[in-house]
Amino acid sequence: MASPFPIDNLPYGVISTADNPAPRCATALDDTAIDLSAIEQDGHFKSVPGFEAEIFSQTTLNVFAALPKSSHSQIRALLTTLLSNADSRTKYAISLDKVTNHFPMETKNFSDFYCSLEHTQNCSKIMNISTPSNWFIIPSVYNGRTSSLRISGTPIRRPNGVFSTNNNNKPAFQPSARFDFELEIGLFLSRPLPPGSILDIADAPGYIFGMVLLNDWSARDIQGFEMVPLGPFHGKGAGTTISPWIVTSEALGACTAASAKVQDPPPLRHLAWRGHKEEETWDVELTATVRRNGRSYIVTETNLKELYWTPYQQLAHLASAGEGLSAGDIFGTGTVTSARMNTNGENMGIACLLERHLPENKLATLTGNGIGFLEDGDEVVIEGWCVNRHTGKRFGFGECSGVVLPALAVDT
Amino acid sequence: MASPFPIDNLPYGVISTADNPAPRCATALDDTAIDLSAIEQDGHFKSVPGFEAEIFSQTTLNVFAALPKSSHSQIRALLTTLLSNADSRTKYAISLDKVTNHFPMETKNFSDFYCSLEHTQNCSKIMNISTPSNWFIIPSVYNGRTSSLRISGTPIRRPNGVFSTNNNNKPAFQPSARFDFELEIGLFLSRPLPPGSILDIADAPGYIFGMVLLNDWSARDIQGFEMVPLGPFHGKGAGTTISPWIVTSEALGACTAASAKVQDPPPLRHLAWRGHKEEETWDVELTATVRRNGRSYIVTETNLKELYWTPYQQLAHLASAGEGLSAGDIFGTGTVTSARMNTNGENMGIACLLERHLPENKLATLTGNGIGFLEDGDEVVIEGWCVNRHTGKRFGFGECSGVVLPALAVDT
Repeated sequence: MASPFPIDNLPYGVISTADNPAPRCATALDDTAIDLSAIEQDGHFKSVPGFEAEIFSQTTLNVFAALPKSSHSQIRALLTTLLSNADSRTKYAISLDKVTNHFPMETKNFSDFYCSLEHTQNCSKIMNISTPSNWFIIPSVYNGRTSSLRISGTPIRRPNGVFSTNNNNKPAFQPSARFDFELEIGLFLSRPLPPGSILDIADAPGYIFGMVLLNDWSARDIQGFEMVPLGPFHGKGAGTTISPWIVTSEALGACTAASAKVQDPPPLRHLAWRGHKEEETWDVELTATVRRNGRSYIVTETNLKELYWTPYQQLAHLASAGEGLSAGDIFGTGTVTSARMNTNGENMGIACLLERHLPENKLATLTGNGIGFLEDGDEVVIEGWCVNRHTGKRFGFGECSGVVLPALAVDT
Repeated sequence: MASPFPIDNLPYGVISTADNPAPRCATALDDTAIDLSAIEQDGHFKSVPGFEAEIFSQTTLNVFAALPKSSHSQIRALLTTLLSNADSRTKYAISLDKVTNHFPMETKNFSDFYCSLEHTQNCSKIMNISTPSNWFIIPSVYNGRTSSLRISGTPIRRPNGVFSTNNNNKPAFQPSARFDFELEIGLFLSRPLPPGSILDIADAPGYIFGMVLLNDWSARDIQGFEMVPLGPFHGKGAGTTISPWIVTSEALGACTAASAKVQDPPPLRHLAWRGHKEEETWDVELTATVRRNGRSYIVTETNLKELYWTPYQQLAHLASAGEGLSAGDIFGTGTVTSARMNTNGENMGIACLLERHLPENKLATLTGNGIGFLEDGDEVVIEGWCVNRHTGKRFGFGECSGVVLPALAVDT
């Protein structure tokens, strides 16, 4: 299979290696990581504003992300030229299988949206409520815990939490029996917005550094018990995994798209996109696979452009009440469920396991193998791919993966 | 009035001054700040484990907070001796009115609880729902945004947000018309708990560095519109103000108390306090005052020990699903509403303005002056006082204050 990291991708990450355990910035190219701190130390970036000091030798990408977009473009052009030369490419390349990825940014705030209409309708049906009327007026969102963020490959421990196993049982503190994934995209912010100011949606693109794949692991039983009235907390706390390489706004400029959804009612003025229709979101194909007992089950095939509320609308909403934003903040788009029938008439667009419990969302390969929820030892792998509209070539995000560990034993 | 900072308090904060604008650690003593970085540079702490490097010259208290409790005790003993000497005290003292306070810790996670039974019952009544049954089983909590945290004295801008002014109107993006305060205590954590582990409530005291007063500014109209199903977001985002001096666990050891509430049903095992009954919470007298047009209105008189769920139970819950904790994390106790009648039969225990809108919670001084919600220019001041049970002397938290600024103008 082709690499997700051809030369027109050039995503950013933070790596270390056995012989150099200091975390430092890198890009990914085919099956290698390119050590940007080494290129920087050789003086290749001296001409770029902001690169007077060491930028890529830092342990996170925050300082680089906060540089002007013009500096990002210059670095991208320099790298494209340098890495098109086989000798210089070889000099800075490290095989990806020798690289440890680290969480790429210092993050102060993590928020997570609930913006797929199909996901919301399915969840409302399961909760036996109608879709809340406010859902069509503002992008629905809650704050997560920064301490829950994990880099791809980190095992995720099944949480203990309080819930009743059925209506007759007393609530108890016990391992989650309904542990789930949620397929999402995460967007990292490049620069801060001062508290007390409001972000015009027209300026939103300037604040997005890039995207990662995101798995919002969810303990449905814990979540269901705790959620009224303050929203999800421990149900979303066991971990939120991101893919290690941040695919930049520049690379993603080659796969922008119109939203697949029509908003009714039309959005309020501060949430209304005033740019080109075909630049309001991105065409990113997304899949989720569950690996169990040596077998792989594709459980989701969906696309980012299917969300009802676009990431720019989400960001405009996030910044609308004056909280301010920090460079390195991340927000999740929410579960990207859509409607996409396979040849058996099954909906492949379902982006978590909870929704598969509705009769209309059954998938024979899952039902036959009993993947009701995640079991200990299961691995969930999310992938994302785009097509560069200029070259017709595919590029992608790599993998966002995690294995489920058994819960800690507790006295109850 | 006596200072909240007698020698048996010794709270920690971070200050700067006009002639030394570098933020550094300090303690407060009577009407002065004591520059701990200067004492450290003079070598007074050399004998204390952990003080080989510079601890109090840092811009936050995180490194100090993470030292063992034994080091905290040694520093406290050294300071008590040193500052009992008039000459050395004079040498390091700076008048409090010449000091700028800074946010005292680097904070990764901010969560806020909902743990007063009276507050919950009043809010449920206003929302026209019954008190959720889960409320009696686990301490109810949501995650806030770290970027919303503010130090006392910072003006708070009235937020814009989306809501309907009444049921017949279309939702619009507009200034909050129902802006409120919430009187709470905030607890700062001293050290991290690794992700994937569970905190035994018996160990909870070892994780609490100290307490501050906390005002969880709340836009009730924005909150009401957004809250179903994911909980509060922008309604709590305009700002969360804390008092600048962290009153330590050591100082607060002199005013521990039994909870004023009986829990029914009894708490689950992992939330059940197994220590001395009279050490399960703290006796902290709390007041809130609204200053409007040159007049002061005392609107709340309550006590921390009146909460249904104690701070230790809150912390045990916070750490129960394996998210991990970071040094410098803060959690709010939730609005400390209680029932305390004055001689006119009015309930002084109401700890926010929303609840005053119930007929049974009216306060003549407020109603007469029309303090329905906060107006631009209003200042809210929260104070907290304790009695040292060994000496009978009072000590306190100082002030947590903020003035409401008018909302930004927006096109709608």
